[in-house]
Amino acid sequence: MTSWPLPPPMKRALELARDAEAAGEVPVGAVVTCAGEVVGEGHNRPRGLADPTAHAEILAIRAAAAVLGSERLENCELWVTLEPCAMCAGAIVHARIGRLYYGASDPKGGAVEHGARVFEQAQCLHRPEVYSGIGEREAAALLRGFFAARR
Amino acid sequence: MTSWPLPPPMKRALELARDAEAAGEVPVGAVVTCAGEVVGEGHNRPRGLADPTAHAEILAIRAAAAVLGSERLENCELWVTLEPCAMCAGAIVHARIGRLYYGASDPKGGAVEHGARVFEQAQCLHRPEVYSGIGEREAAALLRGFFAARR
Repeated sequence: MTSWPLPPPMKRALELARDAEAAGEVPVGAVVTCAGEVVGEGHNRPRGLADPTAHAEILAIRAAAAVLGSERLENCELWVTLEPCAMCAGAIVHARIGRLYYGASDPKGGAVEHGARVFEQAQCLHRPEVYSGIGEREAAALLRGFFAARR
Repeated sequence: MTSWPLPPPMKRALELARDAEAAGEVPVGAVVTCAGEVVGEGHNRPRGLADPTAHAEILAIRAAAAVLGSERLENCELWVTLEPCAMCAGAIVHARIGRLYYGASDPKGGAVEHGARVFEQAQCLHRPEVYSGIGEREAAALLRGFFAARR
């Protein structure tokens, strides 16, 4: 079977997820692109940084905002290997991210198509375009491997 | 009419909200306490820091986690002048904050008693005890004044 090649930002997000795993963190990676260029990236680091907010998306968004010198990332895209949680979905709204691409769904912690469904709330001030399932197989395999090794 | 005096951490959160206003930021302040001691504080600074995640609660939680050297703030309390949004409610869950005290309700952006109702989701892994309305009058007056001056 031949698969379509993954877009380079999602390939990079998967590499970052592997870096997270190597550091003993839950393997999730994220990249922010603007006009085709990577302007921010990160992987899960709550343990390493002793920071409960240090999810891949938050670190990538903060890095991109620092690079661009603006709290608004209107023309940017966020690529992340896992469905964002409520915290990260809220950050995506505040940053006015234009498009969100994510890999695996997360019924336990996701807040895009599950749980709090942050973008579907009537009060939500900004809704990114959302594309899911890109790199899903690779992202889900990483997570399964990580949690299986810890059981 | 005599009011009960505000608890010192909420008084401090209101001072921080005034600092935010003086800096041209939406006036919201937050304090994290642990065993009666302030271990982290912050006020809204998304513009000043060019960081869309720089809400008062996020900055206070990150500061407290850095001081305590842990991503978990199980025995801590968060005092904030406004109902937390989805991002901040999610961070409260990840940090395992024990108790949340907030001042004014926020029908437009709040995600505790409004909108995404993060703590009420079946998937929510940790629910803090929540006390609202403490310092509500002062917090709401600050916000009304701020937005009225900008209309």
